[in-house]
Amino acid sequence: MIGLVKPKTFSFDRLDLESGKTLEDIDIVYETYGSLNEKKDNAVLILHAFSGSAHAAGYYENDTKPGWWDNMIGPGKAFDSDKYFIICSNVLGGCSGSTGPASINKKTGKEYGLDFPVITIGDMAKAQKKLIDFLGIKKLLSAAGGSMGGMQVLEWMVSYPESLRSAIPIAASMRHSPQQIAFNEVARQAIIADANWKKGSYYGGEIPKTGLSLARMIGHITYMSDKSMEKKFARNLKNKADYSFEADSEFEVEGYLKYQGDSFVKRFDANSYLYISKAMDYFDVSGVNFMKQAPASGNDMRFLIIAFESDWLYPPYQSEEIARQLKLKGYDATYCEIKSTYGHDSFLLETDDETRLISSFLNRVYREGLQK
Amino acid sequence: MIGLVKPKTFSFDRLDLESGKTLEDIDIVYETYGSLNEKKDNAVLILHAFSGSAHAAGYYENDTKPGWWDNMIGPGKAFDSDKYFIICSNVLGGCSGSTGPASINKKTGKEYGLDFPVITIGDMAKAQKKLIDFLGIKKLLSAAGGSMGGMQVLEWMVSYPESLRSAIPIAASMRHSPQQIAFNEVARQAIIADANWKKGSYYGGEIPKTGLSLARMIGHITYMSDKSMEKKFARNLKNKADYSFEADSEFEVEGYLKYQGDSFVKRFDANSYLYISKAMDYFDVSGVNFMKQAPASGNDMRFLIIAFESDWLYPPYQSEEIARQLKLKGYDATYCEIKSTYGHDSFLLETDDETRLISSFLNRVYREGLQK
Repeated sequence: MIGLVKPKTFSFDRLDLESGKTLEDIDIVYETYGSLNEKKDNAVLILHAFSGSAHAAGYYENDTKPGWWDNMIGPGKAFDSDKYFIICSNVLGGCSGSTGPASINKKTGKEYGLDFPVITIGDMAKAQKKLIDFLGIKKLLSAAGGSMGGMQVLEWMVSYPESLRSAIPIAASMRHSPQQIAFNEVARQAIIADANWKKGSYYGGEIPKTGLSLARMIGHITYMSDKSMEKKFARNLKNKADYSFEADSEFEVEGYLKYQGDSFVKRFDANSYLYISKAMDYFDVSGVNFMKQAPASGNDMRFLIIAFESDWLYPPYQSEEIARQLKLKGYDATYCEIKSTYGHDSFLLETDDETRLISSFLNRVYREGLQK
Repeated sequence: MIGLVKPKTFSFDRLDLESGKTLEDIDIVYETYGSLNEKKDNAVLILHAFSGSAHAAGYYENDTKPGWWDNMIGPGKAFDSDKYFIICSNVLGGCSGSTGPASINKKTGKEYGLDFPVITIGDMAKAQKKLIDFLGIKKLLSAAGGSMGGMQVLEWMVSYPESLRSAIPIAASMRHSPQQIAFNEVARQAIIADANWKKGSYYGGEIPKTGLSLARMIGHITYMSDKSMEKKFARNLKNKADYSFEADSEFEVEGYLKYQGDSFVKRFDANSYLYISKAMDYFDVSGVNFMKQAPASGNDMRFLIIAFESDWLYPPYQSEEIARQLKLKGYDATYCEIKSTYGHDSFLLETDDETRLISSFLNRVYREGLQK
């Protein structure tokens, strides 16, 4: 058990963005679990998914629910806090403490809104790199994450290979397919269509909760699978079908989506949804952008790529392609497809299989380091 | 070539609905192609999909585009108008001529809006049965349709088996899975969330076009496949990515969806979207509701069930289940899965394969009738 945790804030002056613009006065909120050893070679960076946060494990005071990957992070767990120093930060552009469109622009004293510059996955990684530098870590034992977290892992591999001993991209892609872009775009359009969105200047007033809730509902369908929905809801009714169109959420699945949408608007910022989803759509490290040829000798980088059978949003073929490219370029890469019916959500749910794979992978990488 | 066609209207006094309510003064708009023979045994009923209409083939005066299944209906085509008398009507609850929520309620002199009673696929078939009776047809040579059209075919099989010689449900399901319901529900919520929807009383004023357009965009993603989207759009840009969030439709796929949404609102009624999608979600002819055991002798019903490999909205397993149930109950049923990358849209696009299958199937059924 990690027990009680508190988020910390790392602040820095400026970040030159991929767009050519500059962002100033940046906060990155992060949490750490376990201790950094003297050689500073036991650090693992955890990257969170679209709607995640720095709170990956442990509890905040008075909270009943732990961080989003608590079953993977802690003493004796996959990311063993007895052995490793584990870091997780909220992404740039996010809304859980790090600087994003809902933050106060010091120049105006108001929230950024659409004045916030467009950011990329590359910019997120750049901010994370500054945090790692600040913590005095030259080389991470590993970087790991699922979904958009996996895309950040890929960005780290491409942009800071010298700072990585290993990497674990899970349920990720080197680039979004048009179908993935399409789902994101409909979600964005739902937010933009909400009259309360007001071109992003809704802070202090009514928030665009209907649009944001719709966006989340669409997302949730894509995070599950046909099979997992059948298992969870079938055609069960929440309220008796009364053949009246106005009935509220007749089918259980309708009530579930509505609940997910309603709770999401309480914890997530609509503009962050726009900016972060756009960053995912822009992301493309495929082709010539992907990793240099591994040096014939002295290459000790290790990669574990994980995908899930029923994940139709980030289908296994996208992860297989990552593994294929790595192998073609001479890297030690292992690809594992986990049998699961949970769809894209599997990376949060199939923790037994993930634990087995990741524990032994990290162990090996760590041991190899000790032998040097 | 069918050439120029004109829609006709069949009107009747009342329809007792599955909900227990009654609808009065009903118009059903329909088109016919070819001629009914003297024995009146060459009639084929075509059932349209969610957003279809009675205009299945031929051209309206000054139109540049033919009906929605023109490549399947006409002299020498799958539904050969030289041999068969082909009928297609707009569904009850629709917005292309048949009575629906946008029609004038004679009692009030105003559009029904939400006063329109909830309708079911069973009610649609009941209205079609009245049309068939009116045309003097006792037994249809066949009933055929894709998607919601296929669901109407299944309804005909269950409710009016004595009026069918054969049936061709394409890319259909005996009932919606929770995933199918979920996509429909998000689309409905998008319409309902539009401030212009005004609980369905928007006629004569601004229509809820943003919500309806969003609904259609969601639908369109589900009608295509990951592969077909990759082939059609890849990650091509419509406008140069300028790293500015406000840019309009950067990716081609975004522009395509927007275009599809924008054109849909010009031809479809938002309330019809709500009513018809609800009818699809209610539909369930599975289990004990599905077809009686075929009589051991004298059963001359024939079934052709077609599905498409890449259709993830109405996955092939749903069609296989139809065929399995029919065979279990002693019917002559053939199941064909067509290889296609077009997803659910395949039923409108894979007309070569469909033509081969349907032509020979209908030929056989027709010949068997002549031999009696």
